[in-house]
Amino acid sequence: MIRVPERGAHIARRMAGIQPFHVMELLGRARELEAQGRSVIHMEIGEPDFATPAPVIEAGQRALAERRTHYTPSLGLPELREAIARFYGARYGVTVEPRRIVITPGASGALLLALAAMIDPGDRVLLADPGYPCNRHFVRLVEGEAVSVPVAAADDFQLRASHVEQHWDARTVAAMVATPSNPTGTLLHADALRALHEAVRKGGGRLIVDEIYQGLTYGPELMTALGLSDELFLINSFSKYFCMTGWRLGWLVVPEEYLREVEKLAQNLYIAAPTVSQYAALAAFTPENIALLEGYRAEFHRRRDYLLPELQRLGFKVPVVPEGAFYIYADCSAFAAESFELSRRLLEEAGVAVTPGIDFGEHRAGSYLRFAYTTSMENLAEGVRRLAGAL
Amino acid sequence: MIRVPERGAHIARRMAGIQPFHVMELLGRARELEAQGRSVIHMEIGEPDFATPAPVIEAGQRALAERRTHYTPSLGLPELREAIARFYGARYGVTVEPRRIVITPGASGALLLALAAMIDPGDRVLLADPGYPCNRHFVRLVEGEAVSVPVAAADDFQLRASHVEQHWDARTVAAMVATPSNPTGTLLHADALRALHEAVRKGGGRLIVDEIYQGLTYGPELMTALGLSDELFLINSFSKYFCMTGWRLGWLVVPEEYLREVEKLAQNLYIAAPTVSQYAALAAFTPENIALLEGYRAEFHRRRDYLLPELQRLGFKVPVVPEGAFYIYADCSAFAAESFELSRRLLEEAGVAVTPGIDFGEHRAGSYLRFAYTTSMENLAEGVRRLAGAL
Repeated sequence: MIRVPERGAHIARRMAGIQPFHVMELLGRARELEAQGRSVIHMEIGEPDFATPAPVIEAGQRALAERRTHYTPSLGLPELREAIARFYGARYGVTVEPRRIVITPGASGALLLALAAMIDPGDRVLLADPGYPCNRHFVRLVEGEAVSVPVAAADDFQLRASHVEQHWDARTVAAMVATPSNPTGTLLHADALRALHEAVRKGGGRLIVDEIYQGLTYGPELMTALGLSDELFLINSFSKYFCMTGWRLGWLVVPEEYLREVEKLAQNLYIAAPTVSQYAALAAFTPENIALLEGYRAEFHRRRDYLLPELQRLGFKVPVVPEGAFYIYADCSAFAAESFELSRRLLEEAGVAVTPGIDFGEHRAGSYLRFAYTTSMENLAEGVRRLAGAL
Repeated sequence: MIRVPERGAHIARRMAGIQPFHVMELLGRARELEAQGRSVIHMEIGEPDFATPAPVIEAGQRALAERRTHYTPSLGLPELREAIARFYGARYGVTVEPRRIVITPGASGALLLALAAMIDPGDRVLLADPGYPCNRHFVRLVEGEAVSVPVAAADDFQLRASHVEQHWDARTVAAMVATPSNPTGTLLHADALRALHEAVRKGGGRLIVDEIYQGLTYGPELMTALGLSDELFLINSFSKYFCMTGWRLGWLVVPEEYLREVEKLAQNLYIAAPTVSQYAALAAFTPENIALLEGYRAEFHRRRDYLLPELQRLGFKVPVVPEGAFYIYADCSAFAAESFELSRRLLEEAGVAVTPGIDFGEHRAGSYLRFAYTTSMENLAEGVRRLAGAL
């Protein structure tokens, strides 16, 4: 036996590349302030303030009453996979075989499957900066290299075919986009998406499209990228439009050639998604549930239409009208040299919590704040009043 | 832009090292037979046949009625972390700080956190063969090297300090054991565990102890490895003893030095464990729930005491009395040269489904079958009758 000198904790090198969410520090401080009796307006929270609607709640309660507490198949309840396929048909006019739809523990599980099946150490994945930070951390988890491509307002803060052409090299195997995007709320419209898919295909790679904010759009409704090709990986979730964050339920639409690999991974990496969540989600597509969700969408729309001009009036620059999700990514450089510091100050002095740009990448991150309109109109109005006082 | 020749699917090299569960093929065939009207006795299933007891079901229903549908903190509900700490104190007389207890989506999530935080590419982890196959696949996921150490009946099919001394080298950073073990049902008693921990410590590594079958023992109750050291990673789950498989809820007890890394990983890799599951699990430790679970344990005990001598009478060799979990790992070499083939034959000819040794490793895998006593006494007796007829 070789004796290795005691070295305390052996921490994997990847951990240096995996950042915490800086907003958690702010959230911790916000709770301290609230415990002291201070009021805080929360505009940092990345989940709907609406609880899951009653039809899904009741379906969950029925599943419990019927003792649906054992594992489901690894790829998910067949009837849920079929329900999702029907939803694509009815709402988007797109045919997807249920066998290509894999139920996952949140979109997180979907991302893990897609990347683990595809990415070898050193393989490169192109991602937009700013973007949802977990994406690049999943790439790092499997020892791939996340290539953060700075994207500008002129590109709607989205990865474009021209970026792909510029950054693709022999080690690049995939590009990932989100539409609507977190943190910018911007969309990739059909033409841009088609060009992007074509550029990735020319490189011999795969496009991964994150549609977890699908349904939360405030202009013409987007189609799904599934209408474009059956060669791409499509990630979706019950968390946002369906208001089911805590249920931890998402799905992955898998290109045929990867199905066997994805099934092996699901069996090994998480066994199956939560059972009660899957039964409950069967009620997510019913007309009465969709009607409730459309009411929430209308409310998000009202909030965006209120908050966007108010922020602009205060002096924030929002160069692209966010057409989806529930975020406004606002340039705050008129107020401060560095947005993380500004977010701390807004919390302390104004009692307003927002997320600093640093949580979404490095490209001009210090000039941006993300405002989430996941709180009531009344709270948004109070938040605006407080910001006006502090800035 | 470099044009890469079209290469169809780019499948990561790791996928060649991640095997499917072979028993799934048998399970698929069993369902076909059942659809044709044939009766199948299921002795292949790795989860309790008992549904989750009423106190937990009712707590889940209450959580839904109270609309507990948003995310919890990434490390889990503080009150659940505290409840687990109290359980360790009350049942095992061990003090564990709640802050070191991290709630995870199943034991799968716990294993992912521990390995992602610790394992660099090429780092080696020692594991017993036979053992639970997902463990080595998680090591492969993060590009570590799982070193499968053949373990013999003389060692209770468990990794021992002598194995660690023999196989440790400069690239080895951890050893992982399970007590009770899947597939063998054998235990690691306190002395063996202490020696093992000491050997791993001498190598400068960490011991990972999987106690997911804790509570399901049929002799003197085991203590927890947490009583031994606060330097090891401890994995546990609500799935087995608590009969909560489908809720996807487990926990990881983390050495202090890794807490910050584990929190970053939890935030990024799964956000939080399912919310309703966490609220429901608060009822898992109540006296009325434990009383029900102890009844289930007594039933498993009766089943083991019935099935073990019956299998031996049929000519299976079971060299170590399994003292825990709900498995008997039986040498079937008297009946067939290869156990996967035998398991196929038993299904077709006798209508009995069991798991072939190949699902648990390579070491003498072709000589073993795993029998799970996760079905009624009546079914077990019928299974034994059918086996007697077929062998």
